[in-house]
Amino acid sequence: MVDPGRRPTVKDVARAAGVSASTVSNVLHDHPYVTEEKRQRVTDAIERLGYAPSLVSRQLRAGRSQVLALAVPDITSPYFAHLAHVVIDEARRRSLTLFIDETGGGAAQERTIAEGYLSRGVTGVLFCPVELAPAELERLKSDVPTVLLGEYVPGGSFDHIAINSRRSAVEATEHLLSRGRRRPAFAGMRLDRQAGPAYERLRGVREALRATGVDVDADLVFDVADHSREEGARVARELVRRRSDCDALICAADLLAVGALSALREAGVAVPADIALLGWDDAPEVRYTAPPLTSIAHDMTGLAQQAIDAILARQADPTRPAEHLLVGHRLMVRESTGAG
Amino acid sequence: MVDPGRRPTVKDVARAAGVSASTVSNVLHDHPYVTEEKRQRVTDAIERLGYAPSLVSRQLRAGRSQVLALAVPDITSPYFAHLAHVVIDEARRRSLTLFIDETGGGAAQERTIAEGYLSRGVTGVLFCPVELAPAELERLKSDVPTVLLGEYVPGGSFDHIAINSRRSAVEATEHLLSRGRRRPAFAGMRLDRQAGPAYERLRGVREALRATGVDVDADLVFDVADHSREEGARVARELVRRRSDCDALICAADLLAVGALSALREAGVAVPADIALLGWDDAPEVRYTAPPLTSIAHDMTGLAQQAIDAILARQADPTRPAEHLLVGHRLMVRESTGAG
Repeated sequence: MVDPGRRPTVKDVARAAGVSASTVSNVLHDHPYVTEEKRQRVTDAIERLGYAPSLVSRQLRAGRSQVLALAVPDITSPYFAHLAHVVIDEARRRSLTLFIDETGGGAAQERTIAEGYLSRGVTGVLFCPVELAPAELERLKSDVPTVLLGEYVPGGSFDHIAINSRRSAVEATEHLLSRGRRRPAFAGMRLDRQAGPAYERLRGVREALRATGVDVDADLVFDVADHSREEGARVARELVRRRSDCDALICAADLLAVGALSALREAGVAVPADIALLGWDDAPEVRYTAPPLTSIAHDMTGLAQQAIDAILARQADPTRPAEHLLVGHRLMVRESTGAG
Repeated sequence: MVDPGRRPTVKDVARAAGVSASTVSNVLHDHPYVTEEKRQRVTDAIERLGYAPSLVSRQLRAGRSQVLALAVPDITSPYFAHLAHVVIDEARRRSLTLFIDETGGGAAQERTIAEGYLSRGVTGVLFCPVELAPAELERLKSDVPTVLLGEYVPGGSFDHIAINSRRSAVEATEHLLSRGRRRPAFAGMRLDRQAGPAYERLRGVREALRATGVDVDADLVFDVADHSREEGARVARELVRRRSDCDALICAADLLAVGALSALREAGVAVPADIALLGWDDAPEVRYTAPPLTSIAHDMTGLAQQAIDAILARQADPTRPAEHLLVGHRLMVRESTGAG
């Protein structure tokens, strides 16, 4: 009998099955030279004792590791923390092991990931690139099933999942127009690259504005270094310094909006009376700012599910065509755009 | 010659060394029946080609996995996201693989972790328990080197690292006293358990207050369900409803303070004029609230380094006495307690 307070070992299984430890090991490793009868006795004993083979054993039995990696720029960003949260949850539900890596948004680290995680035994990667351009991602592409989250690669060969950034921006802008705003500023990163979520959001803003006969003023478009509170504050201070007559600030991420809100308050600019403010991601903190911020929420659970589905489908069939999938979004209207 | 754009395989190594692929595999797995001369040729080829064996191979060669786990209640909490950030960084610096798990603060999930991660091949765990009582943690304790972060186990046998919660609370309270506050409320979780960071912080508040001849009013001590913005808002609404004459609210975590700030604003209570407010963790968002919040910052990098050191030391010597280590903290004074 195995002491209930102790985890059963291979030796316990061998004793219970009446076989040698190396026979148990052979069964665990699916070696062909074990008789069916012994295999059955070992399997029964494993079940009876609740023996849990180690990760290494399971990987060997499966013929490959089922370790997925999630590579995000910075886990301290509320968006990426939320993404990690739902991916951890979804991986656990499917008995996959997940490890989380940070790139720091750096090109070298992103290259390592684009080139594949094989040396670490990872067979599938959920990757959120920010620094590498689509062309370089394509050039570096490895055989490790990799799904890109967020970064748009026109015609690219990666599986890719995101919200419809352009469409969500159309809706956000139409909301601002319905509140009488006519002259929005826009802040986001990598606008010069003409790809990526922020660029798609700017496209959506333009599309909605042009329906009213105007375009976004080029002077009111801010390319930021990252989607941080600091950069949002910098843009807001610049708007105040210029005495810009814009009546709304559309931020491609909530952290930019949080930073902008703080800087506008310090400068005595009222939100939303003087400048309406909104962001993307529906970060938890935006419900608690003064005033609470309007934001576009992503269907994060759907994103995690579809991302893992895409990895597993590509593991099963490496030749399947690249998929570009969309998940839902929802405009959460709050006081910062004059709700109510 | 191996194509520089492709990762070398076992076959490439075999070709370069003039041996069979199975000989390479035998060397990687440290099988004894390889001649020293062949072993040397394979090792040379591995080095020359820059071949990186898979995680599984490396684990087998090392005789055990060097995979550490970080188990936190919820990665979307800024404190735990920051902790994950510094632990990822520190693990990478030491070429350790890290996987991050969430317990959801649930007892069942915490039990799984306390009982050890062996079934997943993890040989060291950095664990932030919130639900399990110290006695149960001791009862479940496994052979997997585990360091507790944050939870205080008096006389416990786990390695344990935290800031000096009691001391930091004395400093925070003395700061409030120096600003003329005399009647603080306190909010934190698991105060009834008489252990854990929040309880230690309450002890520190009491100690500093008693030096002025008074104690904390028992009616102003709030046990909260978790350290969330929602719970902070609830406590603040309760204070307002009671027309409490408290002049400060000391929150055991920044998220409580963020929630309280929002609810006080909605109730027309001015911070800091009516109620001074402070928290712990120095979450990034508290620099951007209106007003910015005073908070106690932890030396997170020191925490990550000491935690991994403790795991490795225990792997090397399982019989070493349990260590209870402290890392530094710093009171970051901002407007919410009347800075300036």
